[in-house]
Parts: sequence; structure tokens; C-alpha cells
Amino acid sequence: MQMTLAELASSLELTLIGDGDIQVSGLNTLKDAQPGDVSFLANPSYQSQLADSQASAVIVAASQADLVQGAALVSANPYLSFAQASQLFNDRPQVSSGVHPSAVVAASAVIADNVSVAANAVIGEHCQIGAGCEIGAGSVIGDHCVIGADCQLNPNVTLYHNVVLGDRVTVHSGTVIGGDGFGFAPDQGKWHKICQLGGVRIGSDVEIGSNTSIDRGALGDTVIEDDVIIDNLVQVAHNVRIGQGSALAGCAGIAGSTTLGKYCTVAGGAGIAGHLDIADGVHIAAMTLISKSITEKGAYASGTAQMPMNEWRRSATRFRQLDSMAKRLQQLEKSHKGEA
Amino acid sequence: MQMTLAELASSLELTLIGDGDIQVSGLNTLKDAQPGDVSFLANPSYQSQLADSQASAVIVAASQADLVQGAALVSANPYLSFAQASQLFNDRPQVSSGVHPSAVVAASAVIADNVSVAANAVIGEHCQIGAGCEIGAGSVIGDHCVIGADCQLNPNVTLYHNVVLGDRVTVHSGTVIGGDGFGFAPDQGKWHKICQLGGVRIGSDVEIGSNTSIDRGALGDTVIEDDVIIDNLVQVAHNVRIGQGSALAGCAGIAGSTTLGKYCTVAGGAGIAGHLDIADGVHIAAMTLISKSITEKGAYASGTAQMPMNEWRRSATRFRQLDSMAKRLQQLEKSHKGEA
Amino acid sequence: MQMTLAELASSLELTLIGDGDIQVSGLNTLKDAQPGDVSFLANPSYQSQLADSQASAVIVAASQADLVQGAALVSANPYLSFAQASQLFNDRPQVSSGVHPSAVVAASAVIADNVSVAANAVIGEHCQIGAGCEIGAGSVIGDHCVIGADCQLNPNVTLYHNVVLGDRVTVHSGTVIGGDGFGFAPDQGKWHKICQLGGVRIGSDVEIGSNTSIDRGALGDTVIEDDVIIDNLVQVAHNVRIGQGSALAGCAGIAGSTTLGKYCTVAGGAGIAGHLDIADGVHIAAMTLISKSITEKGAYASGTAQMPMNEWRRSATRFRQLDSMAKRLQQLEKSHKGEA
Repeated sequence: MQMTLAELASSLELTLIGDGDIQVSGLNTLKDAQPGDVSFLANPSYQSQLADSQASAVIVAASQADLVQGAALVSANPYLSFAQASQLFNDRPQVSSGVHPSAVVAASAVIADNVSVAANAVIGEHCQIGAGCEIGAGSVIGDHCVIGADCQLNPNVTLYHNVVLGDRVTVHSGTVIGGDGFGFAPDQGKWHKICQLGGVRIGSDVEIGSNTSIDRGALGDTVIEDDVIIDNLVQVAHNVRIGQGSALAGCAGIAGSTTLGKYCTVAGGAGIAGHLDIADGVHIAAMTLISKSITEKGAYASGTAQMPMNEWRRSATRFRQLDSMAKRLQQLEKSHKGEA
Repeated sequence: MQMTLAELASSLELTLIGDGDIQVSGLNTLKDAQPGDVSFLANPSYQSQLADSQASAVIVAASQADLVQGAALVSANPYLSFAQASQLFNDRPQVSSGVHPSAVVAASAVIADNVSVAANAVIGEHCQIGAGCEIGAGSVIGDHCVIGADCQLNPNVTLYHNVVLGDRVTVHSGTVIGGDGFGFAPDQGKWHKICQLGGVRIGSDVEIGSNTSIDRGALGDTVIEDDVIIDNLVQVAHNVRIGQGSALAGCAGIAGSTTLGKYCTVAGGAGIAGHLDIADGVHIAAMTLISKSITEKGAYASGTAQMPMNEWRRSATRFRQLDSMAKRLQQLEKSHKGEA
Repeated sequence: MQMTLAELASSLELTLIGDGDIQVSGLNTLKDAQPGDVSFLANPSYQSQLADSQASAVIVAASQADLVQGAALVSANPYLSFAQASQLFNDRPQVSSGVHPSAVVAASAVIADNVSVAANAVIGEHCQIGAGCEIGAGSVIGDHCVIGADCQLNPNVTLYHNVVLGDRVTVHSGTVIGGDGFGFAPDQGKWHKICQLGGVRIGSDVEIGSNTSIDRGALGDTVIEDDVIIDNLVQVAHNVRIGQGSALAGCAGIAGSTTLGKYCTVAGGAGIAGHLDIADGVHIAAMTLISKSITEKGAYASGTAQMPMNEWRRSATRFRQLDSMAKRLQQLEKSHKGEA
């Protein structure tokens, strides 16, 4: 992929300050860029790297354009422009459309035009696969799934039956959508399974990372709204609803029947207990446990900060004595007042 | 699936208060039920929803039967009755028995009657698969595995060699049973692998969620007793033993050689360190770390509760000063006594 | 596998104290060993089990040799010798070399001699697979991957395109290497995908557990150096670098662009935030969150220790009051000084 800076600027609708005839062929960080690379400055803490960068051009905000050594591509949102540039330089191997002879596609499945079904993929009865979809090698799609247009299922994805994906949904390898929710009624030392009768409904423009599990609903569906992004190794339990535009980072987990609002972010390893309502615009810090509903937008955290082990041990020991410390403090305050 | 309330009551052995000729065809929550649906009340906090529910019938305890608008199905354990009803209304697609032509089954494997081996499944040498089992598409079963009757392995499950499952074991997609335990002897900056010579033994009536990992034993087996339920993305390390009737929720992890007692519950994201003994009847709270053995039944927790971020930062800062605070408190108490 | 103690001692280069003609055929723990088994004592806390062990021989340090009931195999590093012995007694089923007829191998892929490609595996265009590799059933290898000699990919592993493995790399089932990193530019309520243009480079003598996710780089590669061991369900985000000889236990996670030094250990469930630098020789405790770079080797922790639930509730409540407690303590100290 080779283009001139003039072509790139035009493509990204950016203002070019510099020589439009320069050829560029890749993207890189300010630090690692070589001549021929385009770079970007989105995080101000990297501004000092502008001076030494070998990049042929840098995507920057107008206010930083004159700090750029080479050409500047001026953007109102450099990070967004970088994302758009990454699409242009994407070298992901193209797949050819058609059903690989080793794939097993049920006779009742309806496969639209221009779909690629890779080797050893399996598609169940009565599925509908929209135009432009890629179904990766070894992926298995259960009966009665409906997949919209331009979805990308990477290799070894599993969809159970009655899973619905909108358009432009990307699912990474190892991810399982529609497995049974964890529902059992205890009785006399036995767990009696509650059949999970709902499905999973996923909106459009959703991306789901690798080895993530999204369970089907017990009654009614698990729902992921449009524009949601989910990272790797994330647990989404039955009947969870994730609001539009929210983001869940790696190893996060949401327990059953919890509703996460719109435009929320859940950082890595955070957990949300079941049957909660989380308002729109809530940001949950890494490895935080949320065990009560949140009605106000804002940032929330739990846990403690990292310490050298021997110092941590002392604090952890005192944590166990905290209630006693609090009472003794009250006692001293009372005595002190008594004296005063 | 359509039946009369009289048939349903008879099937579930419940007392019907209402018109036995009413036709019902599904289950739903009190809130979402429509006429024709059966609902249930197990959690008292939903009692207020009885008044407005459109359900044709509600499974309830005797004490709440007169609050039901439609018909009441009186149960000594409404949640258990609901679980049983979910079996009746289960619409999971039926699989046909037989070995799909694309499956690869070793000549030495012994497959009982009425087994379904789906597309592209692979079954190794000397395996025994019991009657009524389903082996999902793309699942791989290593050599010398023994699988009891009526097990359900969903698509893309992996069993390594020498894994034994009892009867009525369900394993969800992406789950790996029998991978090598994490055993290495360090020497001069290298990790020397300890071959994992044991296997995995899983009892009967066990359910294991999706993308869960259960490692084989280093010496001797990793053991999961009867009636255990395990959720998604759970880590069970080598030589762990999980006692009968215990439940592990999503993202929980148990490190090597730890024994979890019978009828324990481990909530989501909780972790148990290695080489510990956890007594019967222990309940571990969400995202708790257990690093010492537990000899008494009861509930245990670690961590701190959620707070708005700016308040949390202040508490977290003070946590680092806790030992100093405790000493200063003691000093004040001493001074105070000296004065008194 | 049967051998005499003399043969075993010779093979492991250990000094035998006892009868070299004794036949042994397996390894076991001191507690479970039967006659015919070899055991070992590496952890001093098990020393008391020497007296009652039925083992025919025990691998021990010289200082403990005279406590052994049967034969002693004296080692300078008993745990390392045990690891070596486990290789001798390894009973993992042998695979036969060759490409299974159901595997799908691209015409442009170059497969070295003595490679086993199991049933339903899929190998993409322009891949290179080194001599002695095993590619497990159902595994999928994307285009342009380079795999060194003697690698073992277990069943249902997924490698995306442009993933490079060194020699003697073991990857367990369900693991995904090279999935897209979690990179999106937010703009007006939408997440704009940043195509992940880098790859993954993994050194030699690396072992990676099951259901682990290692993402490809956004720009430049995600790098795992030689001699690294990674357990199950571990998240390694884009552009992470893991230094030589480091170990990551189950359910650990490292966020994007963080560098972990050499010879570090990350215990189970620990998390490291993104864009950090962790020095060589750092040990992170279980379920610890690291949110700042670490410049000094040593052990680090966060969180609190386990408590019975009702005691924990009191401490957790007080944690929320910590800043107020600290201020009140200062106030008392001030008053006290004023009085003195």
C-alpha cells in the first residue's frame, strides 16, 4: 500500500502542510517511524517525541502543527484520523468469497451473496447469513441464527442456536455466544438446571474480542446494543443488557440480569454483580467490584493501590483491625471532649 | 410446546388454583409475561410484580397464592418448580443420532448407541462414549477418554487424553479439560517442564460453562465430584479437588492442589491460592482472594466496597498509611492513660 | 515405562543410595506413592512424609538422604530432577507424522519433515511449519505464520496471520494468538476501529496455557521473549512485551503497551494496567492491581486479606471513612500537643 501525502490528506479530509508528492506506505509510532511512515500525535505526553521522529508525516492537532519536523496532516481529532488511516493501510489477508468444500452448511441455511465460509466451518439449520460476511475456519453456528451484513466471525468462534447479530459485527476467535446461562435451583444438595430459553441479540457495529463468553438469556434475551466494544476474556452472563456505545475491557465480567447503561466504560478485570442497574456514563476502574446499583454517572473504584509487599502486609493487617481502630478513635475523642 | 394448566400442574406435581383448561405455551418473568405464559415468584422482592403481571399462571408458595391475579400453581419450592417447568418448555434444537460423515472417529473408539457426533468432531483412539451422548461440531476428544451416558459436549470443546466424565455431564463450548497443569522447575533462568502425568476425573451431573479450563493432574488426577456446577471462564488448576455439590461462578480461579469442600460456593472472580484446604459449606464472596486454608464453614470476603473515584482515592491513600495511623493511635491512648 | 533405579540414576545423573536393580515404573507424591513408584522431596514442609512413604525411591537433597526409607536419589536440585524424571515417565500419546486427510493445508504453505497435522486442522497461505511440529486437531493457522521446530499446538488453537513462534513453543487448546488488540478512537458516541497492523512474535522455549488470548500489535508487534511461561485464561494485550524467563499465572492480565521485565512472576488473577514499565525481577502477588510503573525489583501487592464476612463488612465500612479517621487522628494529636 503506497500513496502520496496528497492522496492521504484527501482521503482522510485533512489539511496537509508539506510536500504532497511524498510517498508513504505505512503507519508507525513517532518513536519507531521510518521515512515513508506516517505517524500521529494524540496523547500530549508524547509531544516531545515530535522533534526526533523520522516519520514522513505526522497527524496532529492544529496547535501542534508547527512542532512537526516533516509534513503535518492537521486534524480536529488526530486519534480518529489515525484510526481512519489504519483502515487505509490495513494488510489483513483478503478472504475469497464462497463456501469452502470442507465446510458443512445445512441445506436450510440461507447464505447471501459474497459470503466467505472458510474451511471446516459448520452452519446450522435455518441460519441466515448476510451479504459480505466472513465465517472463519472451524467456526460453528447453531441453528436459527441470523447474522446481518458484513459481519466477520474469525476462526473457531461458536454461536449457539437463536443468536442474532446486526450488521458489521466482528467476533474474534474462541468466543462463545449463546451458551447456557448459569441458572440452577438448589434442592437437597442437587442443582436443578434451569433451561435457558432465551437467546442473544447483538446490535450493529459491535466488536467482541477473543475467548469471551456471552450467555443466552434464561427467559428473554441477553442484549448488546449498537456500537458496543468488548475485549478478550470477558464474561457477559444471561440476561445482561449492555447499553449503546459502552466498552468492556479484558477480563471484565458482568453477572446475570444486570443492566449497564449507555456510554459506560468498564476497565480490565472489573466485575459487576448480578441484578444491578448501572446508569449511563459510568466509568468503572480496573479490577473494581461493583455490588450495588449506580444511579449517578461518574467514575467508581474499589480495592487498594499497589505497595511493596512488606508495607502491604502491615496495611493489610491493620485493615482487619479497622473497626476497632475507629471505635478507639471515637473513645479518645469522647475523653478529649470530656476533658476540654 | 402447548399444554393445559391441568397438564402442567400434573407434570410438576403442583396444586393448581384456577382453571385447568387454560392453554399455556411458554415461561416468562412476572414483568414480561404475556397471556399464555407461566411465570413464577421465588424472590420475595418481586412480590409487588404479582399485581400487574399478565401471566396466565404463576408458580408461587402457598403463602402468596392469593396474591396471584390469574391461576396459581402452588409449590413448596417455587424456584425448583420453575426449573422443572423450564425443562418442559425447552426448545433447544434436537440433534439426530449418528456420526456425521465429516467427523473423524478413531477405529478403536467405542461409541454406544444413540450417540450424536456432529460435523467435524474428532474422537481419539480407545475412547468410550456412552449412550445418548452428544458430541458437538468441532469438538476434539483425545485418546483414552471415557465419557458416561447422556453427556452433552457442545461445539468446539476440547478434551485431552485420559479425561473421564461421569453421566449427564454438560460441557459448554470453548472449554478445555485436561490441558497441562502449570508445573515447571526453575533452574538458572530456565523453566523445566514437569510433564503432567495425571488425568482429570469428573463425576456425574456436572455442568461446566464455556471457555473454562480444567487442567490435568501433575501426579494423580484433578477431581471434580458429582453435582458440581462451574460457570464460564473459570480456571481449575492441576490436582484441584472440588467437592460434591459445590458451585463456581464466572471468572473464578482455583490454583494447584487446593481442595474445595462439599457444598461450597465461589462467587464471580474469586480466587483461591494453591495447596489450601477449604472446608465444606464455605461461601466465598465475589472477587475475594483466599490465601489461607479455611477450617470453618461460613462466608468469607476480601477487598473493599465501591466508592466514587475521588473518595476512593482518599481512602486508598490512607490505606497506605494505616500502620502509621494505628501506631499513632496507640501512642495517643498511652498518653491519655498517662494523663488520666 | 519400566526401568531400574540404576538406569534412572544414570539418566538423571543422580547419586543412587540403595539397590540399583529395583524396578520402577512411575512417579508419584510421597503420600500416594506405591512400591514401584519414584517420589521426590523438594518442599521441606513435606519432609515428615518421608517416614511413611511407600515409594521405592525418593529424589532428595543430600542433607535429607538418610531420612529416606527406600532408596535415595541424591540431587543438588530435587525439584529439577523430578521435572527431568517426569519427561522419562511421560505417557502422553504419540502422534504420527503426516497430514491427516481431513486437514486443509494451503498449497503455498511449507511444511517441514516429520510434522503432524491432525484431523480438521487448517493451515493458511504462505505458512512455514518447522520440523517436528504437532498441529492439533481443529487448530487454525492464519496466513503468513512462521512456526519454528518442535512446536506443539494442541487441538483447537487459533493463530491469526503474521504470528511467529520460535522453537519448542507449546500452545494449549483454546488459546488465540494474534487477535486484534482493543484499539478504538471514540468520536461522537461511536468507536472507530484502529486496524491492528502489527503481529505477534514469540521466542523459543515458551509455553502458553489454554484459553489464553495474546493480541497482535496495533503498530509493531506484541513480543514474548524466550523462556516465558504463561498459564490458562491469561490476557496479553496489544504491544505488550514480556521479558525473558518471566511467568504469568492463570487469569492474569496485562493491558496494552506495557513492558514486563525479565524474570518477573505475575501470580494468579493479577492485573497490570497499560503503558507501564515493570522492572526485571518483579514479583506481583495474586489478584494485585498494578497501576503505576515499577522501577525496583521486589514483591508488590494490593488488596486486603480474607476475613469472615461479618468482620469484613465492618472493616469495609470503615475503609470508606478512612480519610475522616486520619483527619480526626491528626486533630487529636494537635490538641494533645497543645495540651502538653
